[in-house]
Amino acid sequence: MSKVKIDNNAFTYFMPMALVGAMVDNRPNFLAVAWLTRVNYKPPLMAVALGKTHFTNPGLRATKAFSVNIPGVDLAEKTDYCGLVSGKKVDKSKLFTVFTGETGAPMIEECRLCLDCRLIQTVDLPADELFIGEIVGAYADETCLTDGKPDVKKIDPFTLTMPDNGYWRVGEYVGKAWSLGKNAKA
Amino acid sequence: MSKVKIDNNAFTYFMPMALVGAMVDNRPNFLAVAWLTRVNYKPPLMAVALGKTHFTNPGLRATKAFSVNIPGVDLAEKTDYCGLVSGKKVDKSKLFTVFTGETGAPMIEECRLCLDCRLIQTVDLPADELFIGEIVGAYADETCLTDGKPDVKKIDPFTLTMPDNGYWRVGEYVGKAWSLGKNAKA
Repeated sequence: MSKVKIDNNAFTYFMPMALVGAMVDNRPNFLAVAWLTRVNYKPPLMAVALGKTHFTNPGLRATKAFSVNIPGVDLAEKTDYCGLVSGKKVDKSKLFTVFTGETGAPMIEECRLCLDCRLIQTVDLPADELFIGEIVGAYADETCLTDGKPDVKKIDPFTLTMPDNGYWRVGEYVGKAWSLGKNAKA
Repeated sequence: MSKVKIDNNAFTYFMPMALVGAMVDNRPNFLAVAWLTRVNYKPPLMAVALGKTHFTNPGLRATKAFSVNIPGVDLAEKTDYCGLVSGKKVDKSKLFTVFTGETGAPMIEECRLCLDCRLIQTVDLPADELFIGEIVGAYADETCLTDGKPDVKKIDPFTLTMPDNGYWRVGEYVGKAWSLGKNAKA
């Protein structure tokens, strides 16, 4: 084993930058989040980890609704801002043009892909709450679709790396998933 | 609202490709996974969603241990292969050079970053099990570190997009997280 031990507080590559929206005291609020993932195929479930002290959590629990909005690089500055300032201190409701779907969670018109989620389960962790929601509506800009599917190059999302705290664009195409490995063998 | 509705079975951008390792019937097994995320800062917790029918799940539950290994683009073909074939049918234990840490979960020498995780909680979902583990050891190739921290450009990981099933490399640097937004305002 030629490896060195590093800090256990280590991370995956990459972490998807998203803006999570929820109504808090009847006002839209948005939070920059990179700890989220799909967790079930059918029904389509999404899990989002939010530190317990966040302003968003009580609103999310009360309304049982949240949105996951994928910002493009054009929104990198505003997204980072949403991670720097708390809704406790600053009204973020006017930062974006808001629309709503079935759950009433605020979604962001300026994001090319928005997922409307209904909270179905909350997992209590030491410092975070893991909110698991069903995607009940998915909305995309027509201009970001190729053959009816979201196209990562048109969405132009960015990813977070930690602990160096960098944002990165998507790069070159590597190959087709569930296909590339057909020539490999154990 | 100028958006169109798309299939609710929608995804985040990006999803980190990883190889999850576990001992199954005393044999190392590896699974290609993109549905995983950190879910708690301190202690460092990692959540991994695995479909209930996977060969890995009983072994992971029995040993209460799993590893998260980050493959580079050089391992894209082998990683994809691990997603194409089940350990039920193929012995994947010889695909990689295996090492172990505190939990005994098999880790992959050829991956530049490996996280050794002890299972602390399992969340039962309709089609998946969400395994939450504490990172009790993190191992990196010294050559992939910059100032002692993993460097995404040296790790050269790749990301999965769905539903178009593509693998992608990391691209250009966008900016510094928790900094870029200092000039934005609500």
